[in-house]
Amino acid sequence: MTVIYNRVALVGLGLIASSMFWAMKRKGLAGEVTGYARSEATRDTARRIGLCDRVCDSLADAVKDADLVVLAVPVGVMGAVAAEIAPALKPGATVTDVGSVKRDVINSVGPHLPAGVHFIPGHPLAGTEHSGPESGFAELFDNRWHLLVPAEGSDETAVAQLRRLWEDIGANVEIMDADHHDLVLAVTSHAPHLIAYTMVGVADDLRRVTDSEVIKYSAAGFRDFTRIAASDPTMWRDVFLANKDATLEILGRFTEELFALQRAIRTGDGDHLHDYFTRTRAIRRGIIEAGQDTAAPDFGRTKTPS
Amino acid sequence: MTVIYNRVALVGLGLIASSMFWAMKRKGLAGEVTGYARSEATRDTARRIGLCDRVCDSLADAVKDADLVVLAVPVGVMGAVAAEIAPALKPGATVTDVGSVKRDVINSVGPHLPAGVHFIPGHPLAGTEHSGPESGFAELFDNRWHLLVPAEGSDETAVAQLRRLWEDIGANVEIMDADHHDLVLAVTSHAPHLIAYTMVGVADDLRRVTDSEVIKYSAAGFRDFTRIAASDPTMWRDVFLANKDATLEILGRFTEELFALQRAIRTGDGDHLHDYFTRTRAIRRGIIEAGQDTAAPDFGRTKTPS
Repeated sequence: MTVIYNRVALVGLGLIASSMFWAMKRKGLAGEVTGYARSEATRDTARRIGLCDRVCDSLADAVKDADLVVLAVPVGVMGAVAAEIAPALKPGATVTDVGSVKRDVINSVGPHLPAGVHFIPGHPLAGTEHSGPESGFAELFDNRWHLLVPAEGSDETAVAQLRRLWEDIGANVEIMDADHHDLVLAVTSHAPHLIAYTMVGVADDLRRVTDSEVIKYSAAGFRDFTRIAASDPTMWRDVFLANKDATLEILGRFTEELFALQRAIRTGDGDHLHDYFTRTRAIRRGIIEAGQDTAAPDFGRTKTPS
Repeated sequence: MTVIYNRVALVGLGLIASSMFWAMKRKGLAGEVTGYARSEATRDTARRIGLCDRVCDSLADAVKDADLVVLAVPVGVMGAVAAEIAPALKPGATVTDVGSVKRDVINSVGPHLPAGVHFIPGHPLAGTEHSGPESGFAELFDNRWHLLVPAEGSDETAVAQLRRLWEDIGANVEIMDADHHDLVLAVTSHAPHLIAYTMVGVADDLRRVTDSEVIKYSAAGFRDFTRIAASDPTMWRDVFLANKDATLEILGRFTEELFALQRAIRTGDGDHLHDYFTRTRAIRRGIIEAGQDTAAPDFGRTKTPS
């Protein structure tokens, strides 16, 4: 038991917050963890499954006396939540978040927080396609990255303490600039998600033509897209709106490349296609060598479905 | 031991043919299996690992006296291989293939085959991102679909025999029309593969901007695309060229939808995005209910990479 914060408040009780709770419990990192969710049903579920030491019925109760407040709500409501908790925050407390976009969160949350409160934005690169209070598990962050995006001049002790929490939760922590974060994530996460959503939507439109065959024969590649496109709609709506410029920039590049490949197909330019596909194969090897995915064929899932 | 064909010849010794061999061995479905690969290195590897009962150094030797010949080569060379084996085929033999496109294979292979030989095209919807003679395993086709695309007037006994082989290999067999096959696969496989290749190529271009961060932080969604984009370049070049019309048709619809979503991001139309993402989420449920993917979060892989 190494308690890092005596009182932690989790605001929003979805996949990330619930996984944080179980990960903190696993190693005794917090004295007491309070939780709040806007929906009564979510609070009831949390109480039933023992999620949080104490589930509060008001935001102010949850954050009162907390040494660390974690904003784990969709990016689009971060600002409103920050405004609401501001008067109840303890002087010297740290406020962090787990949003997938950082510049927008800094702009919307920062101005509401009183002087003497440390605001240290963060983003754990971990998740599954499931959501809600029952989807969390202690191992979610193990060996995954957690990106901290402190403003210049942030209190070093406060940053070090938050870093230690995430490391003890199981993550590898890196410090990153907010704008750079938003560009990197547009490439590795936001654009791929929008593309997956789009492809699944197209297939859905074609269901009338192909009956249920799109689902029946999905193992040929399509089903991987559907996993990504099963992620939480509210969270992702907010991500795209909040990281508009970087996402549109990457999607613009994507469209250019796609048109070039479509042209190669139309004109029968096999060399162009072959060269392109050879290059992309090498990136997969890089990811496996970096320990960021399993080397097992088909994610090791081939024998799983039955 | 229920031998379905006394002599089976595998032409091309990659992922599919090697998996077929191990699956046939598992249940003793073939008396003797011969194999041929154009590359001497592949033939040496096959001999070393015991792939095929007899590896032949010529195509004619491999198919001589075979009751079933399986063309397991890239779609683009199916016609040339068919022309070469035609004189050596036994009267009454069945020729099938495992290509991902069917109309093009029918057009390129069919005219070369002599009368009295049964040509019954097929396509197993199974695979991994690995390729080559060492990537095969007996379970690859278990509970996956195998689509048979016999021409009208095909010999019913020959079709029933091939169907039984695939069922005993472990697959669920369906009969389908060639053009319909090519459209369904353009949606469930060909377009998703091209899109994944494109996104990975874009990320590769950005490596100069973001150093190795695209790989380092790939777990946020991107890494799933890299698995698909690690598939065999020659095979996929040929698929796109051979299923040009259907693939371009689906990519055209994809681009339209993508532009509509980009526009919603640009104009801040959150309702449009939320509705779209809610609809796509339902498709994932359909695929899991149809037994075509695991319901485990993140393909069950979250705890795997280390």
